[in-house]
Amino acid sequence: MVRTNGKKVLPLCGCEAITTSCLFLLRYLTGIEPENGCVIVDETGTTLYTDMRYMEAAEKLLSGTDVTPVLYKQSEILERLKGYQSVGVSFDQISHVEYLTLENAGVKLVNVDEPLKSAMSVKNDWELENIQKACEIAEDAFNALLPQIKAGMTETEAAALLEYEMRKRGAQGLAFETIVAFGAHAAVPHHETGLTKLAFGDEILIDFGCRVNGYCSDITRTFLFGDDGKHEEFKKAYAAVLTAHNLVKENLTSGMTGKEGDAIAREYLKSQGLGELFTHSLGHGIGLNVHEAPGISPRSDTVLKDNMVFSDEPGVYKAGEFGIRIEDTITLKDGKVMSFMSKTDRELVIL
Amino acid sequence: MVRTNGKKVLPLCGCEAITTSCLFLLRYLTGIEPENGCVIVDETGTTLYTDMRYMEAAEKLLSGTDVTPVLYKQSEILERLKGYQSVGVSFDQISHVEYLTLENAGVKLVNVDEPLKSAMSVKNDWELENIQKACEIAEDAFNALLPQIKAGMTETEAAALLEYEMRKRGAQGLAFETIVAFGAHAAVPHHETGLTKLAFGDEILIDFGCRVNGYCSDITRTFLFGDDGKHEEFKKAYAAVLTAHNLVKENLTSGMTGKEGDAIAREYLKSQGLGELFTHSLGHGIGLNVHEAPGISPRSDTVLKDNMVFSDEPGVYKAGEFGIRIEDTITLKDGKVMSFMSKTDRELVIL
Repeated sequence: MVRTNGKKVLPLCGCEAITTSCLFLLRYLTGIEPENGCVIVDETGTTLYTDMRYMEAAEKLLSGTDVTPVLYKQSEILERLKGYQSVGVSFDQISHVEYLTLENAGVKLVNVDEPLKSAMSVKNDWELENIQKACEIAEDAFNALLPQIKAGMTETEAAALLEYEMRKRGAQGLAFETIVAFGAHAAVPHHETGLTKLAFGDEILIDFGCRVNGYCSDITRTFLFGDDGKHEEFKKAYAAVLTAHNLVKENLTSGMTGKEGDAIAREYLKSQGLGELFTHSLGHGIGLNVHEAPGISPRSDTVLKDNMVFSDEPGVYKAGEFGIRIEDTITLKDGKVMSFMSKTDRELVIL
Repeated sequence: MVRTNGKKVLPLCGCEAITTSCLFLLRYLTGIEPENGCVIVDETGTTLYTDMRYMEAAEKLLSGTDVTPVLYKQSEILERLKGYQSVGVSFDQISHVEYLTLENAGVKLVNVDEPLKSAMSVKNDWELENIQKACEIAEDAFNALLPQIKAGMTETEAAALLEYEMRKRGAQGLAFETIVAFGAHAAVPHHETGLTKLAFGDEILIDFGCRVNGYCSDITRTFLFGDDGKHEEFKKAYAAVLTAHNLVKENLTSGMTGKEGDAIAREYLKSQGLGELFTHSLGHGIGLNVHEAPGISPRSDTVLKDNMVFSDEPGVYKAGEFGIRIEDTITLKDGKVMSFMSKTDRELVIL
């Protein structure tokens, strides 16, 4: 059975009803995500309006939940929404066209971006289970990929294999475009996977993730394809990034701000003379979006709480030479960090 | 070199400048799609604002084009936009939050949804080449999949293999979630690929596509995994769907409306007593979006033109029994249909 969040979210929003047709918000409120849908949550429950194509599946998946699927009819939806004193929508996720349609129909709209984002950042058990599963699939796929990595293979081929290994283990899509970077490409944090071929002694950085019931995993591993003896600076930096990654796991606690969490890794890398090369935030929230609240960055005042899920991904990049990032998807449990990842090496692997 | 469309689109929009941060519109106007970007087109050329992470790649990819990459700075962008008499944005693709930011800064906004959609529906040579390539990859992958199909394999495994075959041939992502439907699942046009296992005599429906430089392919094939002698009605319906599919290729011409195109298949299927079972439109436009203008449906008054790209996908669905859809991505050239697909069988295949 899917899990729904309408009942949890409505009281936080301070309005009589909430409505959306944004796909990930449909998923959050009803547990499913028909391509064409609109949801209304009010104190009587949650209604999912969708068309004939999705009705049969919706009825099956939603049986036993507080969500009622109903055939989509715009006039009916507008009529119903006009009856509320105030209707919450996400100004961030509603198109201006949709906004005008509601406003012109006389619906009284309020922005509920903040309560929605805040509610979504703290996961329930079902959400945590999906993320755990997405992380396990990603790690198993990575372990299955390693013995298939061969000299002459392109970045794209490695990505294709990894994605296949995730998909056949039950991944329902990618969390984002897989990044495979060989050699100095790893120094570009958002490298576009291409046709570069792997050579002996290259470093390999792979940043990837998949989805289970919409929920994402996000993991990065950096390793060497043989050791040509030219990696002394890389190895030293690797050890520092790993220490930074581990310090976060040991010392980040519920109640800290995102800024304080980020500082754990940043201060350590500074102490090792690598501060300038850590060019991004320590982490970002992970859920139905691979980037969501909370931010774990020097600018984030968000207070971290139990059951928030985010990445721990310190990185060091030296343009034209190397790039290192070690990333786990983690959560907070009883005030402390718990990683969803336990099946892949974080110590430097040399194939 | 990427191809840009700013110069083509601006005069059609009737405003002094256009701006967007929508990903596929960034791609359309600049040829690339940095995750975080904003574009301004005016009569002096096109500016792509993006952050440090994407600057290096942007400079390389945009050299020799009319697009200048510039570091993102919101205050600078707003200041510049305020200087225009009128700024075109897509009300459909701008969030209400972004709209308010521009409006509150004093930018004079006009809706350019219609001219944008209309311009995007007619493809230039570079766009046609990308779509052709995406279609070739899809067909080659399908042909590579066929000998790997085995009894006991799940729908998900077949999808994983097919996606791998596309990816390793250079697909830069999927056009949409691959649909693999075994047996009676094929009767659900939007079946969710699952863990059902393939058995002798099952029919198989596969609807899939990939992307090349953002541009999509879309193809459906329906076939049999062995013949258990119970497929007489299926075979008769298959022949009718194939005839409908071919009649569209023979008789649809530039200058017809979407409605008239749709009627070619619909009238034939009605004449065969299958009208009630053809439950969707004949086709939809294909480009940077897998569903875009023009619609080829009973409600579409759009006049079809040379270099529009759309699907020809008649289908017949008998709930609980079978589903048949035969889909090519096609275009209009010198007034007549040209299919991008020539490598896969449309005649009924029995494995």
